[in-house]
Amino acid sequence: MEFLSENPDISFTSPLFAGILANTLLSTVPGISGAGPGPEKTLLTPNLDAELITDGAITSTTGNPNTPTGCPTPATITRAMMVLTGQKPLFINAGLRFPPSVPCLDAYGEVAGDPRNGDALPSAVRLFAQGERIGSFLSARSDLLVLGECVPGGTTTALCLLRALGYEASVSSSFVHNPVAIKEEVCRQALVRAKAGGSSAPLDLVRYLGDPMMPVAAGIAKTYTGTLVLAGGTQMLAVSALIKALGQPLPRVVTTSYVRDDPTANVGALVRKIGVHITYVDPGFGDLGHAGLARYCIGEVKEGMGAGGAMYLANLMGYTPTMIREAILSMVKTYS
Amino acid sequence: MEFLSENPDISFTSPLFAGILANTLLSTVPGISGAGPGPEKTLLTPNLDAELITDGAITSTTGNPNTPTGCPTPATITRAMMVLTGQKPLFINAGLRFPPSVPCLDAYGEVAGDPRNGDALPSAVRLFAQGERIGSFLSARSDLLVLGECVPGGTTTALCLLRALGYEASVSSSFVHNPVAIKEEVCRQALVRAKAGGSSAPLDLVRYLGDPMMPVAAGIAKTYTGTLVLAGGTQMLAVSALIKALGQPLPRVVTTSYVRDDPTANVGALVRKIGVHITYVDPGFGDLGHAGLARYCIGEVKEGMGAGGAMYLANLMGYTPTMIREAILSMVKTYS
Repeated sequence: MEFLSENPDISFTSPLFAGILANTLLSTVPGISGAGPGPEKTLLTPNLDAELITDGAITSTTGNPNTPTGCPTPATITRAMMVLTGQKPLFINAGLRFPPSVPCLDAYGEVAGDPRNGDALPSAVRLFAQGERIGSFLSARSDLLVLGECVPGGTTTALCLLRALGYEASVSSSFVHNPVAIKEEVCRQALVRAKAGGSSAPLDLVRYLGDPMMPVAAGIAKTYTGTLVLAGGTQMLAVSALIKALGQPLPRVVTTSYVRDDPTANVGALVRKIGVHITYVDPGFGDLGHAGLARYCIGEVKEGMGAGGAMYLANLMGYTPTMIREAILSMVKTYS
Repeated sequence: MEFLSENPDISFTSPLFAGILANTLLSTVPGISGAGPGPEKTLLTPNLDAELITDGAITSTTGNPNTPTGCPTPATITRAMMVLTGQKPLFINAGLRFPPSVPCLDAYGEVAGDPRNGDALPSAVRLFAQGERIGSFLSARSDLLVLGECVPGGTTTALCLLRALGYEASVSSSFVHNPVAIKEEVCRQALVRAKAGGSSAPLDLVRYLGDPMMPVAAGIAKTYTGTLVLAGGTQMLAVSALIKALGQPLPRVVTTSYVRDDPTANVGALVRKIGVHITYVDPGFGDLGHAGLARYCIGEVKEGMGAGGAMYLANLMGYTPTMIREAILSMVKTYS
């Protein structure tokens, strides 16, 4: 297959890769998130991803940047692309439990609560306004913004928001066996609460059952004047649905072919229903001779921390698929 | 007098104005700081300045952007220059007591303590490294960085650091009557503690008696690859002295002629001793027919939040002194 599912016709002179970091307490519900070595530790994953991508190593704690099952984290892929292209990434803190070890553009948000127990994100409207300020600032500093995310538990909040917005969604997972039953039950209870909330205004739905990444991303989309590309899977489709519900123009989406090929998610149908322009990156990890990367192809990890978008950006900047694959393999080997 | 004391020979295509925000508990010592309507409230001044400059108004609290004696805050001048030039400023949170209401690039620092009671800034070395990361990121997004600061109580930490580094310094103040005796007594006690600390390494001195703005600014200076201009008075001379002590090349400094003309500070002598290249901006506030601005000329406020640097940048970008003065007067009038 081709490296990109289509030839993107984008002209730019000053590209920027940014990643939005956030927490939701849903990641601490046992079994929901594969993004960390245990439910409570998922809260720290965005911080460690940002540290790995900024510094090239995690020194603030022990351990290596592999998933609990031994796959390289998507952050390793993103790091490899930053080194290859010379890009200096920006991280945006939308709401984290722990202070990051590297500088972040901070929206001064909050960790989202469990939507089964109360409003998940009381600051949804304020965080949208923070996103608008960030989009305005970044417009002056770049003309192409590839915007990834790292929100453990975020496919579950994405499921909740998509359903609340009226989409018959099923969402992807970083687990090879998507914990569909747990996600569905959380979502069912969250939707009951949201319905009782009484409003169907998009940012009210985010308040009822969303996570901090969503309003910040939608706010950025409102004011960013260059080309915006949302880099992620079903989470960025949920953001796209939110943007559409707010009546704003839809940005592009890019994700990996592994998300598209996830049989437990209905990515293609969602894309058509929302009407979003999507590009798939197929990095061909099955042919690299690395067991951990090959497992992306059989449905593990799949995407995260804007990895698909980082590969897409490298390709747009003129790096060939071969250079991209070699850079990733070389980076992964330093950790294994 | 000329608007700029010299014709700066700087070529650039992508300028950026940034301001470092920080707190030191010294601003809460009664009589030390004029940057706020009372000792405890000085801690909130950087937040309100950033809000005013970003949004054009302060909505998170009541009150107007004047000093307690009715002078327009320097942040009003900086805001006027951002509007005139279309610049979108960046704020860097080096260590604040209260979360800002607008997004900041956050170094995840801490509020500096009173240097008479213990190490003022245990995180000095870590914050220098954060500055290095920020300088590296900003190098990719700009080729001219005008870097201001807002640190209530910061002229006292500047005095402490300059003395600790061996300079016979006296420093400026935002008060028309510089509270020299209080500052001198704080400084005397801080230097006794610093001497007992046993190290004369520059970042150890910052740890003993500095504030969070200092190591972040020095770290940025270490890695920033474009033209860096430190925008401020004696506080930026203290940063320059720190940078020199660290063996790094000295960036330029720009400040207002009102700081240079402060008879209680020895700016000219310090500039020569450090060997820094300085430019003075004389905005001619005495001739504008505005009583509050005219009082800058008789020694009140003088500078702050990079106001001198913001006027300098506007001039470098081609705006005439007349346009600059009219923009400031027009902005100030909306608040009075």
